[in-house]
Amino acid sequence: MVRKNELRDGETAIAAPPLNDAGLVFIGRIHTPWQDRLTCPRQGRQDGPTCRIEVFEPWVAALDGITEYQKIEVLYWLHLSRRDIVRQSPRNDGIARGAFSLRTPVRPNPIATQLVTLLGVDGANVLVRGLDCLDGTPLLDLKPDRCAFTPLAPPQPGDDQVGDDQVGGDSVGDGAP
Amino acid sequence: MVRKNELRDGETAIAAPPLNDAGLVFIGRIHTPWQDRLTCPRQGRQDGPTCRIEVFEPWVAALDGITEYQKIEVLYWLHLSRRDIVRQSPRNDGIARGAFSLRTPVRPNPIATQLVTLLGVDGANVLVRGLDCLDGTPLLDLKPDRCAFTPLAPPQPGDDQVGDDQVGGDSVGDGAP
Repeated sequence: MVRKNELRDGETAIAAPPLNDAGLVFIGRIHTPWQDRLTCPRQGRQDGPTCRIEVFEPWVAALDGITEYQKIEVLYWLHLSRRDIVRQSPRNDGIARGAFSLRTPVRPNPIATQLVTLLGVDGANVLVRGLDCLDGTPLLDLKPDRCAFTPLAPPQPGDDQVGDDQVGGDSVGDGAP
Repeated sequence: MVRKNELRDGETAIAAPPLNDAGLVFIGRIHTPWQDRLTCPRQGRQDGPTCRIEVFEPWVAALDGITEYQKIEVLYWLHLSRRDIVRQSPRNDGIARGAFSLRTPVRPNPIATQLVTLLGVDGANVLVRGLDCLDGTPLLDLKPDRCAFTPLAPPQPGDDQVGDDQVGGDSVGDGAP
């Protein structure tokens, strides 16, 4: 969050199509020390300040079991970001590159993902370190760190599928849809 | 993706509120070998089959620079998942736990995140290994792996903020909003 909503030299904005292919629900709110985009860290750090993730009802029951994990992944909605700049100039020096090669908040779907250190859970509140977002940011999801999580569900046929031999010409899914 | 849409013994479904706090746009489509949720891997593996991420216009320009990274993060929309089960039983054994302590596709906002190995880019197509989703899954975002990415933007005041001393009682953001 190191910019407001300006278009800079060298950047390319597109005419965004309708943004309603699917709908999100804000399941909580993130409380951090940062009140302005121009003071937020560029990236969260695991020794950063404690932040509080407030989970709204009716989703508080979904926290059950989360304290088994030391690291959790947080997904949140960068609600102030414009969404239409496909080539961006992070240094504002006229040199631009694609949004998908940057972790900029300005993206077609401004969803941030961050791996944080879980400090504890107190009712509907999850205390963590490692966030970098603005105070009041809407929460989308919490998940165990993928590295620490082992599926509990029974094995699936795809689990053991390696390389491309099994699927031959269809390996990149040329089938429907 | 190891279930269809059944509600199992011990699980808790909630009455979902309106799901329109924000809107998503599908920016591409993911092509994989898996045509049915019951055959998908439970987790992607870096030695798994090649999958093709097709990026739609007008977002293809946003791929510029992505080949600098060996690992990229893919966000996609689990379009077939129900969203209302807050306590789930992955083993279908009557024992349930919170959705936020699982990487289940059934979540209030069914957004999947996966770290994949980038094999190459051919026009609007990104070839990767490490996915686990159904053929035809809508694409939401591509980002460099957070571990490999160093911000290009100039430093920010929050970058060096560690611990809770600087912010005292406001460390968990009790301020507005």
